[in-house]
Amino acid sequence: MGKGMHCRKCGNAAVINMRQHRLALCEAHFVEWMRANTQRFIEKYRMFGPEDRVLVAVSGGKDSLALWDILLALGYRADGLYLGLGIDGSIGYSDESHQRAERFARDFWPDATLHVLDIKGTYGEAIPEVNRRTHRGRGKPCSVCGLIKRHEMNRIAYELGYNVLATGHNLDDEVAVLWSNTLHWQIGYLARQAPVLPADRPGFARKVKPLCRFYEREMAAYALVRGIDYIYDECPFAKGATNLYYKELLNQLEKDQPGAKLDFYLSFLRAKEQGAFTESPDTADLHPCERCGQPTSAPGLCAFCRLWVEQVVENDDPNVVIVEQHDA
Amino acid sequence: MGKGMHCRKCGNAAVINMRQHRLALCEAHFVEWMRANTQRFIEKYRMFGPEDRVLVAVSGGKDSLALWDILLALGYRADGLYLGLGIDGSIGYSDESHQRAERFARDFWPDATLHVLDIKGTYGEAIPEVNRRTHRGRGKPCSVCGLIKRHEMNRIAYELGYNVLATGHNLDDEVAVLWSNTLHWQIGYLARQAPVLPADRPGFARKVKPLCRFYEREMAAYALVRGIDYIYDECPFAKGATNLYYKELLNQLEKDQPGAKLDFYLSFLRAKEQGAFTESPDTADLHPCERCGQPTSAPGLCAFCRLWVEQVVENDDPNVVIVEQHDA
Repeated sequence: MGKGMHCRKCGNAAVINMRQHRLALCEAHFVEWMRANTQRFIEKYRMFGPEDRVLVAVSGGKDSLALWDILLALGYRADGLYLGLGIDGSIGYSDESHQRAERFARDFWPDATLHVLDIKGTYGEAIPEVNRRTHRGRGKPCSVCGLIKRHEMNRIAYELGYNVLATGHNLDDEVAVLWSNTLHWQIGYLARQAPVLPADRPGFARKVKPLCRFYEREMAAYALVRGIDYIYDECPFAKGATNLYYKELLNQLEKDQPGAKLDFYLSFLRAKEQGAFTESPDTADLHPCERCGQPTSAPGLCAFCRLWVEQVVENDDPNVVIVEQHDA
Repeated sequence: MGKGMHCRKCGNAAVINMRQHRLALCEAHFVEWMRANTQRFIEKYRMFGPEDRVLVAVSGGKDSLALWDILLALGYRADGLYLGLGIDGSIGYSDESHQRAERFARDFWPDATLHVLDIKGTYGEAIPEVNRRTHRGRGKPCSVCGLIKRHEMNRIAYELGYNVLATGHNLDDEVAVLWSNTLHWQIGYLARQAPVLPADRPGFARKVKPLCRFYEREMAAYALVRGIDYIYDECPFAKGATNLYYKELLNQLEKDQPGAKLDFYLSFLRAKEQGAFTESPDTADLHPCERCGQPTSAPGLCAFCRLWVEQVVENDDPNVVIVEQHDA
């Protein structure tokens, strides 16, 4: 990285050269730059302030650990939430990622709180098992997994009194989703893709993505420079995902036209701000799910609860939750 | 092409296999299919009817010659217009393409009319010369060329009483432009990209792209099967153009996901039809150019006329035009 290049701020050896910003920085100034920019994005998109209680969805990967690190370094009231999904693969994916999350909290921010919720411990089935039962073993569990994660993050934020839910989506993630939604011109999804999503209903958490303008490469460099030990591997189910394919295609574009991804994303946000898309009025009539109380447009039960009513589960009351608190 | 495959309609050897349509066809049925689909697109997008007078912009390339061929075969009142741009390159680009256009008309449709206008003969300068003078030799003449072509096609259609102007843009062309406009989220351009553009003002021609749903590969196959001798080379100035780069990237996508381009384009049209984009009201106050009378939003002269007033040109009155008529 940036071999032979010098930090623009102090002239010391640079650890990263960001072509799209024409900016090379040393370790210390890169860390400073990442934090200052995160702060700038938080303010620009009105994500949250010092008074808010932020719950960071921590997966054990570089993005979410770096996000938590940056928010704490900036002085925000940010706690972590690790969801145990029970995904093994050949590398014991969930165990490994859980360990990284715990270790990071203990070593870097011993005063911070890491909440841990194990899906199987709470509902009796891990993600692959839920998928096998509800989808008869067909296809990947990614959509079931996303549904469960969204529901649980919402629920836990609500029950523990966090008003902001932060995820570590970086620019590459956002651009891959944007590209996918654009390829099919899914205007509804495009209208809703944003750095901030307001709370679904009063009492629920606002969803924010403070890293949405950082390249994946910048996040990896931040984790490296900070000495954060994160899980390198993608989820074993992600292999061959269309999302990863789009990322490769977009990486090729970025290589040929440095800054193309950032430009794509920022011009999208600008167009939206200027009212580019006619947001189809949300005619979906939201009402509380009969079982869990979360807002849903489905009649009766929400999609999450329908996952479980098809058989008796150990813990039938999702409002009783096992949350370990980590205050190492 | 489609080696060992059989025509779905008659069982004879197929000459093309269109993966995205899961359709293999023999020579005769492919020609029939191309024409029937062109007819379908003309009707679907309300491009024109048998009573309209259509002027086809003919470049000597496969798309425009095939378009003219198809429209004549379908029985439309379609004449050709060849614009001599005076571009040489190493291959005598303009001369070669002019010859192909003349030869096609003579050999295939001897009763059809091919209008020929030479830019240098009319205005005293070929495209590269105009660009050198007005842009001090910097950059490529592509934008000057586009401006001149649009103006002249409009003018000639108007003066000769054509109410429809047809160009040979194929799906690959449209998708490359769409992708480029999307990469920068140029909502104004997106709102205007369509198979049909209504006339700028009464008396001017409607602009239509009857081939916008055919892949470039299909157009090449049509020209080949019909025995049309067209100019293979791109314009020598097109080399290294961003447009060609995007085409390569999109070809890669298409290869991995057959039908992706068509899907991208059709879902875009569908989203627009459903009112996806807020078309910013055209606040530009159009008025007739003081010199040529074409509608312009610029005060005084239109962009085309400003190209010429910077020096004395041989033919100062653009309304006096040299149009050769080809009725071989």
